[in-house]
Amino acid sequence: MTASLPYDPQRLARCADEIIVNVRELAERGWTPATSSNFSCRMDATNVAITVSGRDKGRLVAADIMVVDVGGNPVATTQKSSAETLLHTQLYKRFPEIGCVLHTHSVNQTVASRLYAAKGAIRLEGYELLKAFAGNTTHDTLLDLPVLPNTQDMPELASKVEALLDGGPMWGYLIEGHGLYAWGRDMAEARRHLEAFEFLLACELEMRRLGASSN
Amino acid sequence: MTASLPYDPQRLARCADEIIVNVRELAERGWTPATSSNFSCRMDATNVAITVSGRDKGRLVAADIMVVDVGGNPVATTQKSSAETLLHTQLYKRFPEIGCVLHTHSVNQTVASRLYAAKGAIRLEGYELLKAFAGNTTHDTLLDLPVLPNTQDMPELASKVEALLDGGPMWGYLIEGHGLYAWGRDMAEARRHLEAFEFLLACELEMRRLGASSN
Amino acid sequence: MTASLPYDPQRLARCADEIIVNVRELAERGWTPATSSNFSCRMDATNVAITVSGRDKGRLVAADIMVVDVGGNPVATTQKSSAETLLHTQLYKRFPEIGCVLHTHSVNQTVASRLYAAKGAIRLEGYELLKAFAGNTTHDTLLDLPVLPNTQDMPELASKVEALLDGGPMWGYLIEGHGLYAWGRDMAEARRHLEAFEFLLACELEMRRLGASSN
Amino acid sequence: MTASLPYDPQRLARCADEIIVNVRELAERGWTPATSSNFSCRMDATNVAITVSGRDKGRLVAADIMVVDVGGNPVATTQKSSAETLLHTQLYKRFPEIGCVLHTHSVNQTVASRLYAAKGAIRLEGYELLKAFAGNTTHDTLLDLPVLPNTQDMPELASKVEALLDGGPMWGYLIEGHGLYAWGRDMAEARRHLEAFEFLLACELEMRRLGASSN
Repeated sequence: MTASLPYDPQRLARCADEIIVNVRELAERGWTPATSSNFSCRMDATNVAITVSGRDKGRLVAADIMVVDVGGNPVATTQKSSAETLLHTQLYKRFPEIGCVLHTHSVNQTVASRLYAAKGAIRLEGYELLKAFAGNTTHDTLLDLPVLPNTQDMPELASKVEALLDGGPMWGYLIEGHGLYAWGRDMAEARRHLEAFEFLLACELEMRRLGASSN
Repeated sequence: MTASLPYDPQRLARCADEIIVNVRELAERGWTPATSSNFSCRMDATNVAITVSGRDKGRLVAADIMVVDVGGNPVATTQKSSAETLLHTQLYKRFPEIGCVLHTHSVNQTVASRLYAAKGAIRLEGYELLKAFAGNTTHDTLLDLPVLPNTQDMPELASKVEALLDGGPMWGYLIEGHGLYAWGRDMAEARRHLEAFEFLLACELEMRRLGASSN
Repeated sequence: MTASLPYDPQRLARCADEIIVNVRELAERGWTPATSSNFSCRMDATNVAITVSGRDKGRLVAADIMVVDVGGNPVATTQKSSAETLLHTQLYKRFPEIGCVLHTHSVNQTVASRLYAAKGAIRLEGYELLKAFAGNTTHDTLLDLPVLPNTQDMPELASKVEALLDGGPMWGYLIEGHGLYAWGRDMAEARRHLEAFEFLLACELEMRRLGASSN
Repeated sequence: MTASLPYDPQRLARCADEIIVNVRELAERGWTPATSSNFSCRMDATNVAITVSGRDKGRLVAADIMVVDVGGNPVATTQKSSAETLLHTQLYKRFPEIGCVLHTHSVNQTVASRLYAAKGAIRLEGYELLKAFAGNTTHDTLLDLPVLPNTQDMPELASKVEALLDGGPMWGYLIEGHGLYAWGRDMAEARRHLEAFEFLLACELEMRRLGASSN
């Protein structure tokens, strides 16, 4: 009986729809290879809709979306979410205004994360598309996209993210050899940030290939 | 009551359809990342159909197209067009024969605009596809695609464009770190010019990567 | 009255269908930018179905396919075929077994044609995909894809092609800064040859970018 | 009468469906150019469903899938499977748990196979996506993807593969100038391995282009 669920099943259905439609589009671009990547939307103050671990992101259906609480624990399900669930829920827990977290594995993200791991960040500067990030109103600015070392120890990785978040507003970070996390107040904003990061990384790598990067 | 509108609503509907169909195709190619880019078609001597600011260009619907006059002012709407509206309307105002203006942000356009900003132009020469530009009948010609410095001051940018236009017929320009403007007598011609510029920039960047560009 | 047509209109309809289906797929890959490229199929001993000049290859409909004779003259139509029609019809005229000619403008084809113009050919060697060309049964072979200088003088270009054809069997050639011609006994074979050339050019350019080409 | 067939025709129909759906998706990515590549699924202990030689992989239909036994001989058909059938069946014969074998020809696979042929393998190390391979639980590992010399002598090539398989568990190998073989317990796993290899090769080639590969 759904009446006993600790969340609104209608809300879950709407979140699942939004995740499915958007993630299929990201999968078509090749940003979620080999069942990698994971995606979530906030349902309410304590519950989050998130993709079940190991599913093909180009073929998501409603049964591939489950609920976890903001502590990362499964809610009313025996399904298993990604090992990286904590990297999603730490953002929902800390920032009530965050409504969506997207984690992808494009070639550009993976390669950039390796190239700039030693520096700890990639500087993105002088691009009109910097205006795509909430709060920016000019291209005449810069953004340092952090690169964290990869680890399978999620609490350790989450604590490094917390330290970054202490430093001020940010909309994403890379993990070395792994991929990108991006977020926003809702799916539309999170996706805009994700697309902007991907585009700017593509430009920076292209500039490097052409011997014209200042990074 | 639509009878009081200062434009023909049927004409707006046709322009909106044409923008929607074409822009979705451009969005699929990745030329409009993160809700960037904007697009317009002339409706009549004084009115222009243009995309509303900040909409996802891969999901445009009729409500995402609004009307501005050739001075760039919204007509019979509270919607907001792009800050760059002036760059569209200056072309319609100056050239009665221009029917369509397309502004995109591909990786090639953005990277090329940065690489050639110091030179102020990219020379495109010896390509069969130069015949795609209205007025050209041979590959044995050359075209300098101008690159303007980026600024958030639209009147300043528009006045630099006016100076370029004083120099003779042209079908497009780049803005540094930003993207491409291309235009034509109608959507088909504007799109042909846009595709030709994108293709030729892709070739030039590839030639540079291979150490074979004369630019 | 179609009874008076110097060709079988049913045959034209079938050729047009085959061109439309295949060319739309080639257009989606970006091999026909800015209304460039042209395509033909043999209808019978003297008639050829060919694309009308200047049409958008991603939106071809039956009205975009016309008939020319093997001398390149329009048949029972006021439509205009491409200026390059002669490059199609010289193949049909000389080789009764040729049933289809495809001409495209991909970035790889255009860039490769410029890089290897001075050499006059690109050597393709040691690839399994060389078996895609009719007559080849092993990867342990080589193929020199000729590169001709571009010109708007079609009879001159056609005579250079004739000289190449005198040299023995071949399935395609490049024109500098322009694109690729490929052909075969029917659409399936012509398309297989086209795809094989495009793939092998992509590999060769990539090998060069990585400093590992022997070309 | 199907009752006399040495296999279950329902099982063949299900295997054919699975191959058709998945291979069309691989074809759309350009991994099966010019009718190359071949694909198979195990039907039972002795029979294998496999693509008929020379078919366009973007347009597969049920008639393009035939049956061979684990010795590579056609079963109840006059159709001809690929010359490389033996490379599929040797895996089914040796490993009862293998349920699917996928062989593709992407540009990345072909170029990587040539670049690393002299070394005999490509080392893939430090990528999160290494977790996509069955048995791996961390990015902190490495995988050497073998590269075999190309030959048209299939028994010779098969015996080199047997020698590799003697060395321990593996999920794929490259053939020089040719392409990739990848496999798994079922289509989903084989495809996950294929996508992971393709992604990691794309990353390695990109790192090399950027002068940052340790390979």
